[in-house]
Amino acid sequence: MWAQKTINLRARPRGFHLITDEIEQQLPQIRELSVGLAHVFIQHTSASLTLNENADPSVRTDMEAHFNAFVPERAPYYEHIYEGDDDMPAHIKSSTLGSSVSIPITNGRLALGTWQGVYLGEHRDHGGSRRLVVTIQGE
Amino acid sequence: MWAQKTINLRARPRGFHLITDEIEQQLPQIRELSVGLAHVFIQHTSASLTLNENADPSVRTDMEAHFNAFVPERAPYYEHIYEGDDDMPAHIKSSTLGSSVSIPITNGRLALGTWQGVYLGEHRDHGGSRRLVVTIQGE
Amino acid sequence: MWAQKTINLRARPRGFHLITDEIEQQLPQIRELSVGLAHVFIQHTSASLTLNENADPSVRTDMEAHFNAFVPERAPYYEHIYEGDDDMPAHIKSSTLGSSVSIPITNGRLALGTWQGVYLGEHRDHGGSRRLVVTIQGE
Repeated sequence: MWAQKTINLRARPRGFHLITDEIEQQLPQIRELSVGLAHVFIQHTSASLTLNENADPSVRTDMEAHFNAFVPERAPYYEHIYEGDDDMPAHIKSSTLGSSVSIPITNGRLALGTWQGVYLGEHRDHGGSRRLVVTIQGE
Repeated sequence: MWAQKTINLRARPRGFHLITDEIEQQLPQIRELSVGLAHVFIQHTSASLTLNENADPSVRTDMEAHFNAFVPERAPYYEHIYEGDDDMPAHIKSSTLGSSVSIPITNGRLALGTWQGVYLGEHRDHGGSRRLVVTIQGE
Repeated sequence: MWAQKTINLRARPRGFHLITDEIEQQLPQIRELSVGLAHVFIQHTSASLTLNENADPSVRTDMEAHFNAFVPERAPYYEHIYEGDDDMPAHIKSSTLGSSVSIPITNGRLALGTWQGVYLGEHRDHGGSRRLVVTIQGE
């Protein structure tokens, strides 16, 4: 069984945001699978998807602080500067964190660990709506 | 054909560890597939999975030294500090390196390059046992 | 439906290179699938695959500048130094960026965003030809 759905995420501020529930709600087909995989893909190069702690919001703000420190704006060697100070760092963060996550499906549920959630990494100051393509397969 | 198995890895010290053999031994179904994919997923947010060199152990210790230098403990901007100095860096390393690897299956074997192995990144000082979900599919 | 192909990329200089067209041209089976996934895997530990901006070449040179600054050569703690100054950084970049990308297939095409392309990260000074294994599945 295959299913695929495009999800348009509402605009969010720069930072990391939990989107696990939005994905699960829009893919009821997950419940029909005893074993499978869910592939969540973001069609942008200045945002990212990753898995991390789903409980304490300070993990998300510390992630944002870390990546701002280690992927700096206005690095002297940047040449791609005409789309704003946040643009080239956003591209680097996107590749560092990744454009997709793949999650096992077990007995009709995403087989996430107790503390795992799906993060949207919004790396632009005003990134706007973001589009995901979620692909479900299994049996 | 689909197969899925949970593997409990024994506790390992902080650092990078080769776990290719453990995965292959527990998934004999790989041998039945002429073409397919193996998805290895870790159900934790303070450890990671990645592929890297399977020969010289100094690659693994240098990886640990690099990520300790570039994902520092006690960064002044961390707020998530109550679970230990190693906790927030472990979350960042987990997202930087990733929670899963996907490996092609070709003629009954994982189609890894000659020098590629699966690394567990144990990012906590005392992370304990770690749980993987391995999903195999193909024909 | 499953298809799998090994692609030998020609040697490229150190840096990031767009390879989307090469992958699509060698996998005409993509056109037969209404829904599916393409998994692109590199069988090396000193090169990487990632998705990023497919338009302005300065994104690729800035990516190279960033990763050279934040994954330095000759770090004082490296012990794996006998294969050249570029070797250990190449291993770290490979794990930071990743060894594979998975892309949805929708109506016979890779469902990349408008600005997304597949990057080869060549992290050695003289990495030579690089081998990919591309696995297509869907219906």
